Amino acid sequence: MLLKDMSKEQLVEFKAQVQKEYEDFKSKGLKLDMSRGKPSSLQLDMSMEILDVINSTSDMNTETGIDCRNYNLVDGIPEAKRLFAEVLGVSTEEIFIGGNSSLNLEYDIIVKNMILGASETSEPWGKLEKIKWLCPCPGYDRHFGICESLGIEMINIPMLDDGPDMDMIEKLVSEDELIKGVWCVPMYSNPTGITFSDKVVKRFAALKPKAKDFRIFWDNAYCVHHLTDTPDTLLSILEECKNCGNDDMVYIFGSTSKITFAGGGVSFVATSKNNINYLRNLINVQTIGYDKVNQLRHARYFKNYDGIKEKMDKHAEEILPKFQVVLDSLEKNIKPLGIGSWHKPNGGYFISFDAMDGCAKRIAELCKEGGVVLTGAGATFPYGIDPRNSNLRIAPTYPPVSELKLAVELFCISTKLASVEKLLEI
Amino acid sequence: MLLKDMSKEQLVEFKAQVQKEYEDFKSKGLKLDMSRGKPSSLQLDMSMEILDVINSTSDMNTETGIDCRNYNLVDGIPEAKRLFAEVLGVSTEEIFIGGNSSLNLEYDIIVKNMILGASETSEPWGKLEKIKWLCPCPGYDRHFGICESLGIEMINIPMLDDGPDMDMIEKLVSEDELIKGVWCVPMYSNPTGITFSDKVVKRFAALKPKAKDFRIFWDNAYCVHHLTDTPDTLLSILEECKNCGNDDMVYIFGSTSKITFAGGGVSFVATSKNNINYLRNLINVQTIGYDKVNQLRHARYFKNYDGIKEKMDKHAEEILPKFQVVLDSLEKNIKPLGIGSWHKPNGGYFISFDAMDGCAKRIAELCKEGGVVLTGAGATFPYGIDPRNSNLRIAPTYPPVSELKLAVELFCISTKLASVEKLLEI
Repeated sequence: MLLKDMSKEQLVEFKAQVQKEYEDFKSKGLKLDMSRGKPSSLQLDMSMEILDVINSTSDMNTETGIDCRNYNLVDGIPEAKRLFAEVLGVSTEEIFIGGNSSLNLEYDIIVKNMILGASETSEPWGKLEKIKWLCPCPGYDRHFGICESLGIEMINIPMLDDGPDMDMIEKLVSEDELIKGVWCVPMYSNPTGITFSDKVVKRFAALKPKAKDFRIFWDNAYCVHHLTDTPDTLLSILEECKNCGNDDMVYIFGSTSKITFAGGGVSFVATSKNNINYLRNLINVQTIGYDKVNQLRHARYFKNYDGIKEKMDKHAEEILPKFQVVLDSLEKNIKPLGIGSWHKPNGGYFISFDAMDGCAKRIAELCKEGGVVLTGAGATFPYGIDPRNSNLRIAPTYPPVSELKLAVELFCISTKLASVEKLLEI
Repeated sequence: MLLKDMSKEQLVEFKAQVQKEYEDFKSKGLKLDMSRGKPSSLQLDMSMEILDVINSTSDMNTETGIDCRNYNLVDGIPEAKRLFAEVLGVSTEEIFIGGNSSLNLEYDIIVKNMILGASETSEPWGKLEKIKWLCPCPGYDRHFGICESLGIEMINIPMLDDGPDMDMIEKLVSEDELIKGVWCVPMYSNPTGITFSDKVVKRFAALKPKAKDFRIFWDNAYCVHHLTDTPDTLLSILEECKNCGNDDMVYIFGSTSKITFAGGGVSFVATSKNNINYLRNLINVQTIGYDKVNQLRHARYFKNYDGIKEKMDKHAEEILPKFQVVLDSLEKNIKPLGIGSWHKPNGGYFISFDAMDGCAKRIAELCKEGGVVLTGAGATFPYGIDPRNSNLRIAPTYPPVSELKLAVELFCISTKLASVEKLLEI
């Protein structure tokens, strides 16, 4: 029976029963963390052999004979460029290899655009009274954190089943010159898990922004993070942009943080040759070069895209059962009551849960008191404000299955309790 | 006989002779590079065993049980903090471990101060019409490059034998609120090779800048890069600043770029606990964390400061003969003619050469035509403009001794030729 169809008496009875379940659970003294999309120890173990690839007897030269141990090659070593260009489906002239964090590349590019402009001929964003950013949401909290920290005004864009609300985006960017960018996680989106449809990608590429220096920040963090044999597919935004004469409008980001080591991977950004040249010149002032030894380690370990795919199949084997635990529990405990909705993703790191309006904070609070830390309610929205107070991000990858089962059980009990509380207070 | 004491006839004869030497040299078809302060292959070979320290069988946890392979610890792992804090003589609460480049940390801190302010309560530098920076020179070209790229106005400060001209610095900072910082390479200065005297360090620490958010960027890049058994010593600027109540005024930078690998080291910055907290909060927006696997590799390889000292002794054995080659040749070929001056450094990576006024560009040009690339004349000054056109930076570390001998020979011939040309044109 749907919770909303229950009589007051039924709700009171339901509440008493759930309250008891909750108290029982609390007494177990759990201490679990589902707050971040972190790989598990078992996933990290899968890449330990990368640490043997480069050792004291290794030839430390790139395939072009440059010593990776010394200064040089600010934009990356050729074999790393080739590997990651293949992953993103771009040419080696359209890619720049960075340090270990793609977030860092995103931050640095925004900051450079603020201080120096998005191209040689454009005005620094920081010279303007203010700038604005489009934020499809629910989205990635750290993206919003960058905007908030840098004083960039964020505009909420609803996420639909096939990507952000493009009607709204097209209208806004065509009207407001202060809108300088948009965040996207186009594949297995953080947190909703959906992949942008071909139509959405084409509409992004065909945007006619009033701001000539408008930029799409296409964080393709989960581009190889499939969970099923029928993975989603994503159109190449760079190709589409070229087709529309918008060559310089997009930056595509990726990293091996969730392929090898989150604490020791390699990041990269793909964009037009124009933008690469501009970026290389600017970054050449910031650093003499990123860690080329780690680039060499990654390039030699994987050899090519197939090497990465093979690794990701192993990750999927480890992760998929965890997603299934969450989905099964939601299906069993939440669906019959009609007190939440979610999407079953074909990849990525998250399950996005929409509770009844006004319940998300209370659910997170109940989980916390019961010993399970979730990503804070609201975190998936700009300024931490979820207008409907309904979205929660479930990150199933980190805990072992046994702990995850308990955590999800608590999550479902907390959702039931928060929902019945809500219905009774009306 | 000093060149300046020669008669016109003697000069003409001298020129003809040097011209012949130069042409003979040119015909050898050399192709050598003395432009950058890069470690040699032999130096890099000395650290190859660091690549075995972490392998597929390693325990990847920090001493506090945090998995270095995963996200976490944006300010660095405890063992890396302890190691580099010991090197800089600060506490582990006063240090932040970064990626592989201290230049990158310097750049990022300036950029953050421009966009967000140097502290929670200070105004972003970027809000001001302009800001200015004090640049002791000759100095490090990449420091000046950061200021130039970010549109920061640079003010030349003469370098004296014991550090920058402190009278000038004290006067300027006390008068002009737009002066927000100063570059220093306090030990084995790039390029002059001198170390700041205790008095200079104390005067820096006791500055009373009109700008309350004035910052000293103390790039202690060569703090362990001694060449002799009687190394220079440098007072702790952080301690001195504390003594003067200027706790937050200094950032001290360092890295292992010239200890292990220039293309795969670890960087760090030391400053007050206040500044560390401020920085940690800001960098936590920029990245989830730097490469902790490489931090662990470095910490376990060196174990402690003694491990680093031992390594640097080996470097000195390799580098010292190269410095001697340059110094011997200058002593023999240049000194008798009185056409140049230099300092014999006790450490670092450079010999700074002051030619006769107006000769530096011509010397660099002659060297280049003869097959040896030097750091561009003027590069050691802001905007690449050496007011006296006399300073050249000699970087002896990278080429093998045999090549270095030829390169210095050409340098001396070029200096003689440029000097006699100069004297004849007057």
